[in-house]
Amino acid sequence: MSKLVGGIEAGGTKFICAVGSGPDDIRAEIRIPTTQPEETLGKVIAFFKEQQEKYREQLRSIGIACFGPIDLNPHSSTYGFITSTPKPGWKNTNVVGAIRKALNLPIAFEHDVVGAAIGEAAWGAAKGLSDFIYITIGTGIGGGILVNGNPIHGLVHPEVGHMRLPHDLKKDPFLGNCPYHGDCFEGLASGPALEKRWGMPGYQIPDDHPAWSLEAEYIALAVSNLILTTSPQKIILGGGVMQRSHLFPVIRQKVLGILNGYVQARALLDDIEHYIVPPGLGNRAGILGSLAMAQQIV
Amino acid sequence: MSKLVGGIEAGGTKFICAVGSGPDDIRAEIRIPTTQPEETLGKVIAFFKEQQEKYREQLRSIGIACFGPIDLNPHSSTYGFITSTPKPGWKNTNVVGAIRKALNLPIAFEHDVVGAAIGEAAWGAAKGLSDFIYITIGTGIGGGILVNGNPIHGLVHPEVGHMRLPHDLKKDPFLGNCPYHGDCFEGLASGPALEKRWGMPGYQIPDDHPAWSLEAEYIALAVSNLILTTSPQKIILGGGVMQRSHLFPVIRQKVLGILNGYVQARALLDDIEHYIVPPGLGNRAGILGSLAMAQQIV
Ligand SMILES: Nc1ncnc2c1ncn2[C@@H]1O[C@H](COP(=O)(O)OP(=O)(O)O)[C@@H](O)[C@H]1O
Ligand SMILES: Nc1ncnc2c1ncn2[C@@H]1O[C@H](COP(=O)(O)OP(=O)(O)O)[C@@H](O)[C@H]1O
Ligand SMILES: [Zn+2]
Ligand SMILES: [Zn+2]
Repeated sequence: MSKLVGGIEAGGTKFICAVGSGPDDIRAEIRIPTTQPEETLGKVIAFFKEQQEKYREQLRSIGIACFGPIDLNPHSSTYGFITSTPKPGWKNTNVVGAIRKALNLPIAFEHDVVGAAIGEAAWGAAKGLSDFIYITIGTGIGGGILVNGNPIHGLVHPEVGHMRLPHDLKKDPFLGNCPYHGDCFEGLASGPALEKRWGMPGYQIPDDHPAWSLEAEYIALAVSNLILTTSPQKIILGGGVMQRSHLFPVIRQKVLGILNGYVQARALLDDIEHYIVPPGLGNRAGILGSLAMAQQIV
Repeated sequence: MSKLVGGIEAGGTKFICAVGSGPDDIRAEIRIPTTQPEETLGKVIAFFKEQQEKYREQLRSIGIACFGPIDLNPHSSTYGFITSTPKPGWKNTNVVGAIRKALNLPIAFEHDVVGAAIGEAAWGAAKGLSDFIYITIGTGIGGGILVNGNPIHGLVHPEVGHMRLPHDLKKDPFLGNCPYHGDCFEGLASGPALEKRWGMPGYQIPDDHPAWSLEAEYIALAVSNLILTTSPQKIILGGGVMQRSHLFPVIRQKVLGILNGYVQARALLDDIEHYIVPPGLGNRAGILGSLAMAQQIV
């Protein structure tokens, strides 16, 4: 894993680009605001061209962990595109094509959250694991799921944020704010859902507010369903909302209560502190994951 | 796939054993009631010994699709065992060990429902697919999930029957009959749940009874959650309850309603008749799957 590669964490507000071979060897890094595709991708390409001149054949490939929806079907004519995004100007943008044409390097392309999961597997909380989940709970809720060492793609890709969960309207009359589903997981438990339900942004809600027990309940229900459907060896919970670290012990206890002993696995029953964990790489999972993705294809 | 192999569908009421190379080439088949391990496995071994004399080296391997819980961890000292089953006499039974010792052949070992899924991939409704789910809705609810061509194992294995779903107590005051969870998927929608809620066994409930709309609702919620967590290319619904084929169109419509256009995939939006389907092999999926499993290891 010591190959020199490039990585791009392509987000809706900024693109982070880096050249390096791992967390302890970042040779260059830059942040570019996400404006229009031509401008943003132009700056990305300029950065890597400069690096390419510096390192020549040493720079072997580029990994892109990208905001979605994206087309990951290698047989599709729009493979490597950002497809139907509401983000102005970015609909039908050929991200992979633009980078490949300019740099002539092999390119690995994945969802941002899958990139973060791959980063955690390479250098973070999921080191050495073949089956685990990285969930981010922030403005939206998304999940990267690895099974037998590889991301799930299948029909399209998982969208764990939109799972339906038990919702007791007596306990929580908030109807949810997902424009598609109302009270799906994201509609009930994302940062904006917290803000809408309680009338203040999540980071202003005090630790002893009843918001958190409810929040932990929904996260625990979603985590339990994920354990029952994808049987991960570990679950990593990241994103803005999970910065509230007092949520972790509550979520862990609720997961044990929900599963009620049905899943007979030591990792869960005897050691849940190491089973449901924060990201090992913090907010560096995405950009480091894009480097790990690039290394995997050369 | 024309190798001659043996297969065992090891069920709680009967063991089916067969020798063949596929659905059109079954050389011998036998049904053995599940009594005590020594007696049942003794008869299984006697059957295969006879076949082994007949076919000698032609008979290359044995696949076992087994009722659970079983130990699938190849590094475990109880690999190949039926572990903590409530079935009298079967707790801690070394199924793989007994068969291997007697026959000296390579053995593939999987959950019954994963075996059925592998059968459907070899010769049934999932031919050629890498990512799909086989769910059986009968006395219990179980699922075999293939991702990138392989079963999910991970921590242990999926237990999709115990997923939690929205449950509106006003519409359906039945509290569910799962001894662990009450109103999990199985607690709400298995054959015994139908029977307990409506006071008659499922096969006696007429087609126009309100039971079926509710049943389709829970199945559709579970299917939707599985689409959002494992992104299958197809979902096969089998088992006793799904013999009520009028459920299929209702489930399909409800899944489209629940997802509400969020998952943008043609297979789902334009062709759901071929996306949520009955098993192609009917009740032969398990035994044929055990043959396919055996063929995959030689
Ligand atoms: N400390 C905090 N406590 C609770 N909520 C927070 C906290 N920090 C950020 N959030 C919420 O998380 C969301 C932002 O998530 P974040 O993961 O930081 O970004 P994004 O999802 O947009 O990439 C916002 O809704 C914000 O209110
Ligand atoms: N035609 C039917 N309609 C509704 N329910 C049925 C039907 N046939 C069987 N069942 C129910 O399915 C369950 C048995 O499921 P099955 O898949 O046949 O066996 P098992 O799950 O025990 O292997 C029982 O609860 C039975 O009442
Ligand atoms: Zn939603
Ligand atoms: Zn249950």
